[in-house]
Amino acid sequence: MKTVVWQSLSDNQQESLLERPAITDGRNISRTVSDVIDDVRQRGDQALLELTEKFDGIRPASLKVSADEVKAASSRLSDDMKAALKQAYKNIATFHKAQKPATLRVETQPGVVCEQITRPIQSVGLYIPGGSAPLPSTVLMLGVPAQIAGCQEVVLCSPPPIADEILYVAELCGITDIYNVGGAQAIAAMAYGTRTVTKVDKIFGPGNAYVTEAKRQVSNDFRGAAIDMPAGPSEVLVIADSSADPDFIAADLLSQAEHGPDSQVILVTPDPSIADRTADAIQKQLKALSRADIARQALGSSILIVADSLTQCVSISNHYGPEHLIVQTRHPRELVSQLTNAGSIFLGSWSPESVGDYASGTNHVLPTYGYTRTYSSLGLADFSKRMTVQELTAEGLAELAPTVVTIAEAEGLDAHKRAVTIRVEKLTAQSQRIK
Amino acid sequence: MKTVVWQSLSDNQQESLLERPAITDGRNISRTVSDVIDDVRQRGDQALLELTEKFDGIRPASLKVSADEVKAASSRLSDDMKAALKQAYKNIATFHKAQKPATLRVETQPGVVCEQITRPIQSVGLYIPGGSAPLPSTVLMLGVPAQIAGCQEVVLCSPPPIADEILYVAELCGITDIYNVGGAQAIAAMAYGTRTVTKVDKIFGPGNAYVTEAKRQVSNDFRGAAIDMPAGPSEVLVIADSSADPDFIAADLLSQAEHGPDSQVILVTPDPSIADRTADAIQKQLKALSRADIARQALGSSILIVADSLTQCVSISNHYGPEHLIVQTRHPRELVSQLTNAGSIFLGSWSPESVGDYASGTNHVLPTYGYTRTYSSLGLADFSKRMTVQELTAEGLAELAPTVVTIAEAEGLDAHKRAVTIRVEKLTAQSQRIK
Repeated sequence: MKTVVWQSLSDNQQESLLERPAITDGRNISRTVSDVIDDVRQRGDQALLELTEKFDGIRPASLKVSADEVKAASSRLSDDMKAALKQAYKNIATFHKAQKPATLRVETQPGVVCEQITRPIQSVGLYIPGGSAPLPSTVLMLGVPAQIAGCQEVVLCSPPPIADEILYVAELCGITDIYNVGGAQAIAAMAYGTRTVTKVDKIFGPGNAYVTEAKRQVSNDFRGAAIDMPAGPSEVLVIADSSADPDFIAADLLSQAEHGPDSQVILVTPDPSIADRTADAIQKQLKALSRADIARQALGSSILIVADSLTQCVSISNHYGPEHLIVQTRHPRELVSQLTNAGSIFLGSWSPESVGDYASGTNHVLPTYGYTRTYSSLGLADFSKRMTVQELTAEGLAELAPTVVTIAEAEGLDAHKRAVTIRVEKLTAQSQRIK
Repeated sequence: MKTVVWQSLSDNQQESLLERPAITDGRNISRTVSDVIDDVRQRGDQALLELTEKFDGIRPASLKVSADEVKAASSRLSDDMKAALKQAYKNIATFHKAQKPATLRVETQPGVVCEQITRPIQSVGLYIPGGSAPLPSTVLMLGVPAQIAGCQEVVLCSPPPIADEILYVAELCGITDIYNVGGAQAIAAMAYGTRTVTKVDKIFGPGNAYVTEAKRQVSNDFRGAAIDMPAGPSEVLVIADSSADPDFIAADLLSQAEHGPDSQVILVTPDPSIADRTADAIQKQLKALSRADIARQALGSSILIVADSLTQCVSISNHYGPEHLIVQTRHPRELVSQLTNAGSIFLGSWSPESVGDYASGTNHVLPTYGYTRTYSSLGLADFSKRMTVQELTAEGLAELAPTVVTIAEAEGLDAHKRAVTIRVEKLTAQSQRIK
C-alpha cells in the first residue's frame, strides 16, 4: 500500500489516483459469450448440460434441483448455521418490507387525480456464483426482496454442485425453481428460456467476467431480459479521524481486499499517524488470513490518502463514489448529509462492512466502479416497477382543456387536441340539453 | 385497421398478433453513430459545430444559448401559451414533488439501525428532439423532476433553431445550460463533455434512431453516461366496454397514430359493435387531421380485438404491456388492481391520453416496446439514487456477531469474520477492565 498526501498532488495526479483501472475486455470474452448464448438459444437444455459438463466438470442427473434434494440439504446443515441464516433472513426481510411504497394519490387541480402505483416484476432470475466457497448471503440479498415484492416466478441458477447453504436459503425465500447451471449459459437460459428453465423478465446477481458480459448482452436485446445493474470489482473507502482504531480500519480494509485481487481499498484520513498505524496493523493482521495471497494482491494497488481536513476526506470520497463507505470518526452521523455518492454507508466503530454483507438488513448488492453516481443500492424497488394512473372528472377535463389544447397546437398535434375538444363539445351539448 | 376475434385465433396467432415489429437496426446506424461519438470525443466543440451544420443546416453563432436569447424567446410568446405552459408546469411539479421519499429508518434488531436515504444525481442531460414542431412538453417532463430532485447541473441539448416554447419552459425549470446541438453528437457531448458542453452523469429524453443508438452506446461505456430507459415506438391500448363512446375511442387511437408511422394502436373490447363503430369513427375523424398521412400509415398495422370478456381484455393488455393504457368501461377503477404491465393508465371517459402527454401531472416519458414488464414510468426516482446506511451500537454488534461469524465461515471469508471478532474482543477486554 502506498501513502500519499492529497495536497501534494496536482489536479491531474489527484484525478488519476482515484481513477479506476479499465476492465480489460476483451473482445474474446464478448465472442465466447455470444457463442454460448447462441448455443443455448438453439439447443436449449442439451446445450446447458454439455456446457455445464465442459465448464463445471459435472453432468448433473437433472438440470432442475428436486424438492427432495433441497430437503436433504437442509437436514445436513448444523443448527448454528440454520440459526445464523434465519437471523440474517429476518433482518433483511424487516428492512426490505419497510421499503414497500404506499400508493401515491394527488389531486393536482380540482377533478384531476394522479396516482403512482407499483407492481412486482412478474418473473425474475437470480444468479448465484459458484467458486471455492458457497455464497448463501447472495441468495438472501436477491431472494428476500423478490419474495417481499411478490414476484410470481423466481428462478435461481448456480453452477453445480450447489451448496447446502444455498439450497437452504432458497427454501427460506420460497424459491422452488432451482437449476444446476452457471456461467454465461445460465444467463442465456434465464433470458431466453429453455424447455426446462423458465424465461424471466429481469436477471439479478454477481458473477465473473463471462456472467457480466452475458448480462450485458441479453440486456441489450429487447427479446432478452433486463438486468439489475452494471458490475465491477468490489470497493471500500474508509474515512477515519484520529479517534478511529487502526486495528478496526485494517480489519475493514482487509475484509474488502480478500474478495479478490482486483478489489479497491482506500483509506482517507486527516491524521497521518492513523495512516501509518493502519499500515502496520494491516501487515500484522494479514499473517492470520487464509486468503492472504489474494488480499496482498489487492493491497498492491490500494492507497492511504492523507487529507488536510475531514471536509476534504468527504469531498475525496464523493468524487470516488465507493461501493462501501465506512466512516470511523468522532461524530460520524454529522457527515451523512454531506455524503453524496456511495452504495452503502457504515457509521462508527461498531459497524464493520461485514455486518452489511450478511445480516444488518441492508442489501449487499451495490453499485460499484463509479456507478454510485447514478445507480442505487439494490432494494425492493428493483423487483417492482412504478406505473402512473390518472382519472379526470368531466369538470376536471373541461378546466384543463385550454391548457392541453394550447400546447397541442404548439406541437402541431391535431389529434391530441381533438381528443380533448371532442369530449368538451359533447359535454357542452349535454349541458345545453339539460338546460 | 383489421378487426380480429381473439378466441378464433390459435395460441401462436394470438402471440404473433401482439408481437412488436423488430426494430431494424441496422449495422449502418450503429457505425455512423460510433463515428460521430469518436469525432466529438476527439475534436469537441469543433466537431459539434460542423456536425450541426451538416445535419441541421445551421451553423449557430454560439453553441451555448445566451440568457438574452432565452429572455427574447419568452417575450415573443403569447400570454395564452405562457399560461398553458405554466399550468402544465404547476401540475407536473405538484405530482413529482409528492414523489419525494421520506428517509427510511428501521431498527432491525436492538442496536442495529438501517436506513435508506436518497441523493439527487449531480448532473443530468436532457435531450429535446427537434423536427417539424417544438416539443416543450418534453422539456417539462424532464426539466421539472430534475429541478425538484435537486440535480445541481442540468444540461439541455436540442437541434437549432431551438423554439421559443422550449427556451421558455427551460427558464421555468431553472435550466441555464442550453446548447444548440442535436442528434448523436448531442448525446456524445453530454456523455463525454467538450470544452463548452458540461459532461453529465445521466442522459434523459427521446429521439430518433440515431439518438437512441447513441444513448445505447454511451450507456455501455463506463466512462460514458447512464440513460433513462430503452426507447421504442409509442403505443396505446384502449380497453373499452359497451358503455364507451366510439368517438372518444377513435380520437384516442388517432392521437397515438399521429405520432409516427410506427405507432402501435390497439383496441380491445368484449363488444363487437364497439369495434365496428370505432372503425367508422376513425374514418370520419381522420379526414380532419393535418397529420392524416402519418396516422393512416400507423393505422395500417393497428388492430381492433374482440375479446370474450373484460377479464380477457385485461389479460391481453397485461400480456402486451402498453406504454399508454386507456380504460373506458363502466367501472374503470375496478380493473386497476388487475392491471400489471403498463406505463401510464387513463381511467374513464374524461381522461384522454393527451392530458397525460401535457398537463395532468404524470410524466409522459414511459417505457414502451414491452419494457413495461421491467421499467417504470419516469419519475423523481430516476433523477436520484438510493443509498443505505447502517449504524450499530457496541451491544448491537455483539448481539449480531455470532450470525455474521457463522456465515463468514461458511463463505470462507476470514477477514470478514475478523472485522467482527476483533471488535468484540476489544469490547470484552474493555468490559473486563471495567470490572
